[in-house]
Amino acid sequence: MYCPSANGQELKWTEIENGIWKASVGEPEDISLLSAADIQPKVTALNRLPAADFPFPKDRIKTKIMDGKTYLQFPLSREEQIYGLGLNFKTVHQRGRIMQLHVDHYGGRDDGRTHAPVPFYVSSKGYGVLIDAARYITVYAGTGIRVDADDKPVLRDRNTDPQWQAQPYSDAVEILVPAKGTDVYVYGGSKPMEAVQRYNLYNGGGYIPPKWGLGFTQRVPTLYSQDDIAKEAQEFEDHDFPLDFIGVEPGWHSMAYPCTFEWDKTRFPDPKKFNNELLADGIRTNLWLNPYVSPVGSLYPKLKGLSASHTVWNGIVPDLMLPETRDIFKEHFVQNHLNIGVSGYKIDEVDGFDFWVWPDVATFPSGYSGEQMRQVYGLLIQDMTSKWFKEKNQRTYGLVRASNAGASALPYVIYNDYYSHKDFITALVNSSFIGVLWTPEVRASKTAEEWLRRMQSVCFSPMAMLNAWADGTKPWSFPEVEEAVRDVANLRMQLLPYIYSTFSQYHFEGLPPFRAMNLVDGFSYDPKVAEGELDSTDNPYKVAIKSEIKDQYMMGDNILVAPMFEGEDERKVILPKGKWFDFYNGEFVGENELITVTPGLEKIPLFVRDGGIVPMRPIQRQAPKMGEKVDLIIRHYGTKEGEYTLYDDDGLSFDFEKGQFSNVKIGVKKDRKGKLVGTIGSPEKGKPYGYNKKVTWEFKTK
Amino acid sequence: MYCPSANGQELKWTEIENGIWKASVGEPEDISLLSAADIQPKVTALNRLPAADFPFPKDRIKTKIMDGKTYLQFPLSREEQIYGLGLNFKTVHQRGRIMQLHVDHYGGRDDGRTHAPVPFYVSSKGYGVLIDAARYITVYAGTGIRVDADDKPVLRDRNTDPQWQAQPYSDAVEILVPAKGTDVYVYGGSKPMEAVQRYNLYNGGGYIPPKWGLGFTQRVPTLYSQDDIAKEAQEFEDHDFPLDFIGVEPGWHSMAYPCTFEWDKTRFPDPKKFNNELLADGIRTNLWLNPYVSPVGSLYPKLKGLSASHTVWNGIVPDLMLPETRDIFKEHFVQNHLNIGVSGYKIDEVDGFDFWVWPDVATFPSGYSGEQMRQVYGLLIQDMTSKWFKEKNQRTYGLVRASNAGASALPYVIYNDYYSHKDFITALVNSSFIGVLWTPEVRASKTAEEWLRRMQSVCFSPMAMLNAWADGTKPWSFPEVEEAVRDVANLRMQLLPYIYSTFSQYHFEGLPPFRAMNLVDGFSYDPKVAEGELDSTDNPYKVAIKSEIKDQYMMGDNILVAPMFEGEDERKVILPKGKWFDFYNGEFVGENELITVTPGLEKIPLFVRDGGIVPMRPIQRQAPKMGEKVDLIIRHYGTKEGEYTLYDDDGLSFDFEKGQFSNVKIGVKKDRKGKLVGTIGSPEKGKPYGYNKKVTWEFKTK
Repeated sequence: MYCPSANGQELKWTEIENGIWKASVGEPEDISLLSAADIQPKVTALNRLPAADFPFPKDRIKTKIMDGKTYLQFPLSREEQIYGLGLNFKTVHQRGRIMQLHVDHYGGRDDGRTHAPVPFYVSSKGYGVLIDAARYITVYAGTGIRVDADDKPVLRDRNTDPQWQAQPYSDAVEILVPAKGTDVYVYGGSKPMEAVQRYNLYNGGGYIPPKWGLGFTQRVPTLYSQDDIAKEAQEFEDHDFPLDFIGVEPGWHSMAYPCTFEWDKTRFPDPKKFNNELLADGIRTNLWLNPYVSPVGSLYPKLKGLSASHTVWNGIVPDLMLPETRDIFKEHFVQNHLNIGVSGYKIDEVDGFDFWVWPDVATFPSGYSGEQMRQVYGLLIQDMTSKWFKEKNQRTYGLVRASNAGASALPYVIYNDYYSHKDFITALVNSSFIGVLWTPEVRASKTAEEWLRRMQSVCFSPMAMLNAWADGTKPWSFPEVEEAVRDVANLRMQLLPYIYSTFSQYHFEGLPPFRAMNLVDGFSYDPKVAEGELDSTDNPYKVAIKSEIKDQYMMGDNILVAPMFEGEDERKVILPKGKWFDFYNGEFVGENELITVTPGLEKIPLFVRDGGIVPMRPIQRQAPKMGEKVDLIIRHYGTKEGEYTLYDDDGLSFDFEKGQFSNVKIGVKKDRKGKLVGTIGSPEKGKPYGYNKKVTWEFKTK
Repeated sequence: MYCPSANGQELKWTEIENGIWKASVGEPEDISLLSAADIQPKVTALNRLPAADFPFPKDRIKTKIMDGKTYLQFPLSREEQIYGLGLNFKTVHQRGRIMQLHVDHYGGRDDGRTHAPVPFYVSSKGYGVLIDAARYITVYAGTGIRVDADDKPVLRDRNTDPQWQAQPYSDAVEILVPAKGTDVYVYGGSKPMEAVQRYNLYNGGGYIPPKWGLGFTQRVPTLYSQDDIAKEAQEFEDHDFPLDFIGVEPGWHSMAYPCTFEWDKTRFPDPKKFNNELLADGIRTNLWLNPYVSPVGSLYPKLKGLSASHTVWNGIVPDLMLPETRDIFKEHFVQNHLNIGVSGYKIDEVDGFDFWVWPDVATFPSGYSGEQMRQVYGLLIQDMTSKWFKEKNQRTYGLVRASNAGASALPYVIYNDYYSHKDFITALVNSSFIGVLWTPEVRASKTAEEWLRRMQSVCFSPMAMLNAWADGTKPWSFPEVEEAVRDVANLRMQLLPYIYSTFSQYHFEGLPPFRAMNLVDGFSYDPKVAEGELDSTDNPYKVAIKSEIKDQYMMGDNILVAPMFEGEDERKVILPKGKWFDFYNGEFVGENELITVTPGLEKIPLFVRDGGIVPMRPIQRQAPKMGEKVDLIIRHYGTKEGEYTLYDDDGLSFDFEKGQFSNVKIGVKKDRKGKLVGTIGSPEKGKPYGYNKKVTWEFKTK
């Protein structure tokens, strides 16, 4: 029953870092998202950000504990927009939406069930709010209307008033946390990106992948043997196609679904040799797994008492909240995988869906509930595996199907089985609000056009991956577009200096590498709302239709990416303020306007801001190895002077965390005659820097 | 945290009625579904059923309280099927499914969010289980697999074993109730129908609609005035089309969405005259409403302090758990509607969806949570309104968008805005497991064929309704099928003696009027399971496809209805054991087999069992009024002797509950020459009986 006396107390907010406030409501649980991710705030970087004010009057935040749950209310003002609230695939603007945040396979609706249902939202006013609870949190992002609302909607008669709305105006975000308490964080800022930076830096800053992680990766069919894979690698060489790492699918286990985590002796008679021969060709291996332990494997007897009440495909579910469980995994995995050359994992099936993962009625020996474990399992396994590599001072870069708040510093990219190309791009856009990475992986395609368009997109994402586990496709599967596919893969390989520097911004400044337009300065597009049309079945309430920009994004500071989709010859692109230039030919295309482009099949539309500098390198099939030096090609676009910081380190170890990196200034200035001239600084002596002195300058705009 | 010591105790089961057991787990809440429905068990009728054993070993039921929630586990055996678990629209067999039962508008998926998410399941082994909690209950209907399962699935390697399954065999139904306790009921029986009978009888037995409720009803466009409606009634007469009641849509309110519940003086200057003039033509009125109270209405000041924290369309949400609230409603409604001749209500918007009803963070002055109120609101308003009519000793029959467990005796039929004709039939099938009624209402159609097919279906449902609120359609809107539409409406009117007797079975025996084939004796079809095909996107786990019978049903004991759908010239029908005969021509069609029928556009396929007796009456535009007597036409099908009990009462009052009804035996026997001869008994003297002595016998099978 509701007990008003216990409620309504104002929260005690503490500024725990520069511009980040924390408060506890009720009794927060001893398991949370940030604790599962084991975040280590990047305090120095946070202190470099400007100071910020608490973003709204504190008395506008209302809380209560009732019915064993925590009720939260945060204010919204008119015109304010809300972003984030999980890895959504169809929408970017979240105001007016309701989410029940629940780790799950994405099921085709932006309803909160997704691979990273991060309970963090970013406001267009420049702040963020995180609810750090490992629970199925329900968020009413400006839908509920309280009798005592501060800013009430207008009363209308649906009988006669055409302005009547199914969803009247709401002045609050309301949140239900099904727990007796929670910690809440508020991230301040002068603009949305600053709140995102604080969020990422508080989580430890973004992960810088090893250089090889940013090259091209092929995932081979399930039952490929080590010989099949060696042949596959050779084919990539024969086709002169980039390849930095290979994904080894379930067949490497002696049993999969559930898994043994032991090499199948028939298909992989000598796994050490297998790994080392690939490594000798500069190719890394990434092993697929799900964490459900097969009764026929050696880990089973050790883990049986440390697992959940329920099985998944007859495998036990190890309780990763128990240190003993993690120790057992570590011993086996380090010895049998890492120590023989495995460079990463693809962690499948930790998201859902309900029909095969443990039910909410499952219990775990650590005492946490099925619900709590569902929300953190992806984080726990990312954290556990990443630490094994960290202890070896070796960066990894892998794939995971479930994540949550606090993941910025974890070395994993999210993927799934869904396959809408357009929605994949929207997920990439949304990943930038919530501190996760997402790959719009390529699998099969029905046509060469679709194949090429998907390949173009994935080359402008955190992981350029072809996933052929089920269908055995190769990049050259459609011969009619083989050259165009190779071209875009080569372009990604050429852009590695730029992409790597972009990831360094993620780490050192909290700036996401792939960015929603709504996080970009000078982007001023407001969602258009069109009136709905009455239909007794499809739209009986004349719900209005909201348009939003969800099919273009920024890769780093300077490159705007506007993917093309199958069946489309042209598309619209919204350019932020300032002049913009075609990436390929340097020509001016527009400023602060909506343009239509017809790029042809071979090209993905790319645009560079005025004065934008893009460091590149010659075409090479693989990312640079540790100590390797490559030539630089530095492009400049537009007519303005520009600056750029080229980041580099050894590309593989964590020594950059101890200062072993270079930040080299690139500048383009006008000389006395008004001609653009480029300059490049030198790296600090003794710091790793993988570039030759030779620089080719390309002033792309004539 | 999990506290094993408090758990695992065996429940104390009490046989509260013949073959019905109840147990309490933990501390049940003081709000529940059955208490909200205010059920009054029909003890005498229950005692007429054969005794039953508790359906499984009691120690196979496991319970615990953990994390503030109740965990329940019930056994399943191999081959056992599960039905029920809410008003589902796409599936009948629920084993292997997961539901979070949540009152809501149906959203296109059988995931528990529906208009009547009844936490009751029926087993093919002949028992039922009800969880009587007003909470969002999650049911794992044979999906979770416990480490300590009694009957374990086979371990398989997905790498190599083609028999590997994404969903291995599970031997239990597991249920999570997010409350510290709940009451649980087990209904025994020798077959599934017997468990359903017990469920319905415990809830008070099914409602017998007034006779007019089983005639045809037209809902007129929103802004129709009383004059428009009078004209509409005249048009029905001109077109010689049946009409027993008219639905008056939002325009009767002086403001709607939110509502005033007061007549609009412009459109309805004299509501009493309006109602009485229609009544004089034998036409009843049904008023649309949603319960959200407009600030400009007279009820607002009275209800303001008795309403929820949140508004719906700026209307307050009355707390129907408070007696004062109910009293205020009663006074206004009885005086302004019932006392001037209104015969029923259509109660809209009490289901959802989340974007406009109160959020789960809403609080109510009675102290119950938004979640609890969401689960019972439909029941509360059905119970409240039905009692007003009961006090006047006048039966009503209306429409409602939300219901739940315990609704059998409530005078409401569920409807919604969804509009798949096939799924509407599946909902009708599923309604029979869970003690609710459903109408596959007709709204607009794209073609004459669709129109006719939908009209045919709705005439074989609990409410024969055309809902023209948005589009102003009439039964004759497609002139090319006007005659066929009239024919099927007339056929329904002719079948009223049979349909009314069928509803009496619902009331006195608990037999649902419209019945899933799986509840029918001699129906032996098992769901076919076909192997899934691997597809990396659409079916990466090769999930098997289950076929089930969800597009045919029984109306009462004798008539099998197999609706046709637009675009289909033929369809398959599964006939239970025994011989079956075509309703129209009496010809033998098959026995215990799958047949294909090609009925033509004009006819909905109907089949009668061998020896089946169907009492009918001549074509009349309206159902009989109180005291009116009609001729009987008694049909017999097949070659077997048959018996039938013709029920009748005054058709309007509740006097039948005091014994004022007739049960007249109809028999068809073979004479000495083997010729079939019909006999009909006489009603008990002084009991209401609306039939003339004149009987036309039709032996349809030659």
